[in-house]
This record gives sequence, structure tokens and C-alpha cells, in this order.
Amino acid sequence: MSATNITEENLTQIVLDRTKTDDPRFQEFMDKFIKHLHAFIRDLEPTEQEWFTAIDFLTRTGQMCDDVRQEYILLSDVTGASMLVDAINHRGLGSATETTVTGPFHAKALEYEMGTMIARGPELERGEQAVVRGKITDDDGNPVEGVRIDVWQSDDIGFYDSQDDKQPDMNLRGIFTTGADGEYWFRTIKPCSYPVPTDGPVGELLRAAGRHPMRPAHIHFMIDAPGYERLITHIFSAGDEYLESDAVFGVKDSLVADYIPNNSEEQAKELGFKTPFFEMNFDFTLKKSS
Amino acid sequence: MSATNITEENLTQIVLDRTKTDDPRFQEFMDKFIKHLHAFIRDLEPTEQEWFTAIDFLTRTGQMCDDVRQEYILLSDVTGASMLVDAINHRGLGSATETTVTGPFHAKALEYEMGTMIARGPELERGEQAVVRGKITDDDGNPVEGVRIDVWQSDDIGFYDSQDDKQPDMNLRGIFTTGADGEYWFRTIKPCSYPVPTDGPVGELLRAAGRHPMRPAHIHFMIDAPGYERLITHIFSAGDEYLESDAVFGVKDSLVADYIPNNSEEQAKELGFKTPFFEMNFDFTLKKSS
Repeated sequence: MSATNITEENLTQIVLDRTKTDDPRFQEFMDKFIKHLHAFIRDLEPTEQEWFTAIDFLTRTGQMCDDVRQEYILLSDVTGASMLVDAINHRGLGSATETTVTGPFHAKALEYEMGTMIARGPELERGEQAVVRGKITDDDGNPVEGVRIDVWQSDDIGFYDSQDDKQPDMNLRGIFTTGADGEYWFRTIKPCSYPVPTDGPVGELLRAAGRHPMRPAHIHFMIDAPGYERLITHIFSAGDEYLESDAVFGVKDSLVADYIPNNSEEQAKELGFKTPFFEMNFDFTLKKSS
Repeated sequence: MSATNITEENLTQIVLDRTKTDDPRFQEFMDKFIKHLHAFIRDLEPTEQEWFTAIDFLTRTGQMCDDVRQEYILLSDVTGASMLVDAINHRGLGSATETTVTGPFHAKALEYEMGTMIARGPELERGEQAVVRGKITDDDGNPVEGVRIDVWQSDDIGFYDSQDDKQPDMNLRGIFTTGADGEYWFRTIKPCSYPVPTDGPVGELLRAAGRHPMRPAHIHFMIDAPGYERLITHIFSAGDEYLESDAVFGVKDSLVADYIPNNSEEQAKELGFKTPFFEMNFDFTLKKSS
């Protein structure tokens, strides 16, 4: 096929023929990327102005990114792409705990003893005190020892430490390691629903699409243990008004848990809490590495 | 469909159902973007690491852009997307001159009298002198008066003025306006084949794909006249070794023209040229606005 007679009909094949690499997976990536990109353009038939607008959007999305802001992950999240990649990569979980998106807020955290209070900022004065507990088992129900549990969450008004100068460094984050009983627990302030960042191109997209930017309240967990697949997930707060319409499509029924109020003065005193405080229990089941 | 039971199977429909806008074209854009993006992911089944690599590539492509560098247009160009959008938007040209990509190097230029020498930099000492001439007609062959012809090109070693500090501002660019005869002409230095910029993410992509970055030598034309469709095209230099493998897929047979050597001392003297100089003739046919 002559490449000096480019037409609407032959163009896609000419572009496909051009990539010749020794890496079969990269070849597959390029072939499928070109095919789907061209199929999108042929289906949409954008005007030149519309295509320029799309290019400008993608440009500004990249330019919005820096060390603490990743607008392309956010774009992947709000288009459901991140959850689709997550679903494809975590098939056949069986009885293991379901996964959800990592999100853009994971960061370095300190290692703590079980039971540590991970809230150390202004939210202590305002928020609802909670104790989070559970057990980590394999799919036969045996406790798993030496599990590294990395947790991170927003404060009671929806901000992560990296978004808020008033919070101390590494606030509302922590890493815990299980003992022989596979149990974990820590103290915190209940997380709050919050908007994904809306001051960039993704915010424009959500407004244009008639979509709200809210995520239901949740605590993130990244759980690692030798011999098991890494588990990245959230535990969502039951009753949150955004559970049905999470801006990043991350909610699964099995990942929703109640914060149950507790009025025991004695238990509150043991925890250093006031009454009522809240208890949330969630057990995780790990999948063996294949 | 409950949005708290997200699965690999129902996710795409849940994302599609979320966009509800009063703008039918934006609705169509979002629906088709989501469908094709998800189809690409389902077809490729990227690992989480591969998806992160893709996000990092898109991020860096945006970050490479500034006032004089547009890496996303370049990405659109090297993937054939720009030529496909061009083809879709210029169907049914009939006998009118074919179009090709705008490219990233169009910039402000000065208005000149016909015949002006647009080369004013170091290329004057090195390059091959050329006179470019032709006529602008409608599709009945009638000359068109008052046509604004905006031309831009690389120098004899492949650099545009914006890429080269040694070239004067607005070098190798110019705007000409036809009289009643519809004719145009200007003097210049023959353009040269050149690589698209390879120091950014698109360069990485081309290397990984086993593709060269070269474009065959060409002069850009953007031609505007009241009552006619804007014509954006190139005239490529016949015999160029990259005509069959243009990195941006822009070549069409009808847009290739010869630079014919001329040894007439008399004609050279009239033009202020040495012998041999080169003559390139190209007539443009405009399409009436619909």
C-alpha cells in the first residue's frame, strides 16, 4: 500500500503497518491503541475545532500534575477506567476481600503499635471518635501473621493531610503489622465524604457532564503479606449519601461497613474517648499469590 | 442498576448512565469516549503497572507543552489521528486541492508584496534558492482575488525559526494576498526533510515503536478567501526519501511537486539569485463554502 496516497479508508492500516517492534506486548499495546483511537474518531467524527478542544483538555490535564496532584489518575478514576483496570486485574477473588481504586492520596506513613490514634490534627476537636478493628485471615479462615496494613483517610470535613496546611505531616495515616492472632486495631476520627479536586480540567469535565464530584466517606487499606496478593481497597461508611453515586465508581456492597455508636463510659475511658464513640469492625480475607 | 455493586460486566453501563447533559453533542462525545476507552481497556487488559505507565506517559506529554511546544498535537500527528480528523472534515473536495495536517509550527507572520524573499537568516548562505509560483482558482478555473496565503517552512537544514536562535524572528514565513489574476509568487530557500521533536515522550514512543521521526521536505500553506473553505495543506518536494514514510502520515500524491533547476543567468539576475536556482509551480483550487 503506497503511503503517498493516504485516504480516510486506508489510513488506519497504514498507521498500524508502521509499528514493528520486537516486544510483542508493546506491539499489542500500540496495535490496540491505534485501532481504538481511530475507531473513536471514526465514530465521533469530531470537527477540527472539537479535536483541538480535546487536545487542549489533555494538555491542561498533564500541566495540572505535580508532586502532590495527579490529574490524569483523577481522569482515569472519574471515567471508570481505573475501576475497570482494577476489575480485570482482580478476577477470581473467590472469598477474598474485594478490591477498589488506590486513588491519588496514598503517601508515606509512620509504623505504629496496634491501637495507636492516627488522628493528630484539628479534627480531634471536631470529629467523631472511632475505633476500627478486625482480623486478617487466609481463605481457610486462618489468621495471617506479619501482615503490613497501610491505612489512610480524610479528616472529618473531607481533607487529606496533603491538601490541608493545618494538619500535621502524615496525619490520618499509619502502618500496622499483625501478630500471630491476625488481628488489627487502631483509633481515629470518622472519615467524611468529600469532593475530588474540581479546580482543574477534570472538574470542568464533571461540571459539563452534569456529575457531582463527591466520594462517599471511606478509609483506604493497602494490605501486604508474603505469599498473598497485595490487597488495595476501601471500607466505606454505611449510610453515606454518596454510596450510590461515587464519582470514581469505587463502591462495592461487600466493602460497606457500619460505624456503631457505643455509650459505655468504661470502654470510652479505656480508649481515651468520650461517649458516644463509634466502633467499626471489618475482617479481611487475603488471596494466596498464584 | 445499583451503583454499589460495581462489577467488570456492569461498570461501563454505570459510567455511561452517569453523564446527563443538555448539550447533545457533548453527550455524544462523552458516550463515545467512555465506550471506546473501556473497549480499549477490555481488549488490551493492561496490568496495573502498564496502566500506570500509560498515565505517566500522558502526564509527561502534557507537561512537555509550553508556548512554543505542543507535544499533544505531535502525539495526535504521529498516531495518524490528526490526518484522520483532517480526512473526515474534508470529504467531497471534488477537484479542489487536497488538505493535510496543520502541524505545530504555524505562527505569526508579516504581510509581504508578491515576490518577497522570505528567507532572511543563515540559510541564505547555505541553501538552494527557489521561486515558488502558482495560481489560485475556484473549481471552474476562475482566478480568485483577495486570497490570503499564509506560508511557513523549515530552513535548508530542517529547522523552523521557533526552534533556532540563529534565525531572525518570523523567518521563512509570510502572508501574501492575490490580485485579480489570482496569481502568487515568492522567493525562498528550498525546505529540507527534518525529524519531528524527539526529546519528549512522543520521541520515546517512536523509538519504542521502531519508527523514524522524519518528515519529507515541504512548505505549509494556509489559504483563506471569503466564500471559500479554508485550505490548510503542504506542498512536498518530489524525490524526498521520506515521502513514503512521513512520520505524521501527511503525504498525498497530489501534493508532491518538483523543484526544477533553472540555469538562465538572465532570469537569475532578475530574481537576485545565482544559477542554478529552482522553480516550483503549484496551482491551488479552492472549494466554495457550503
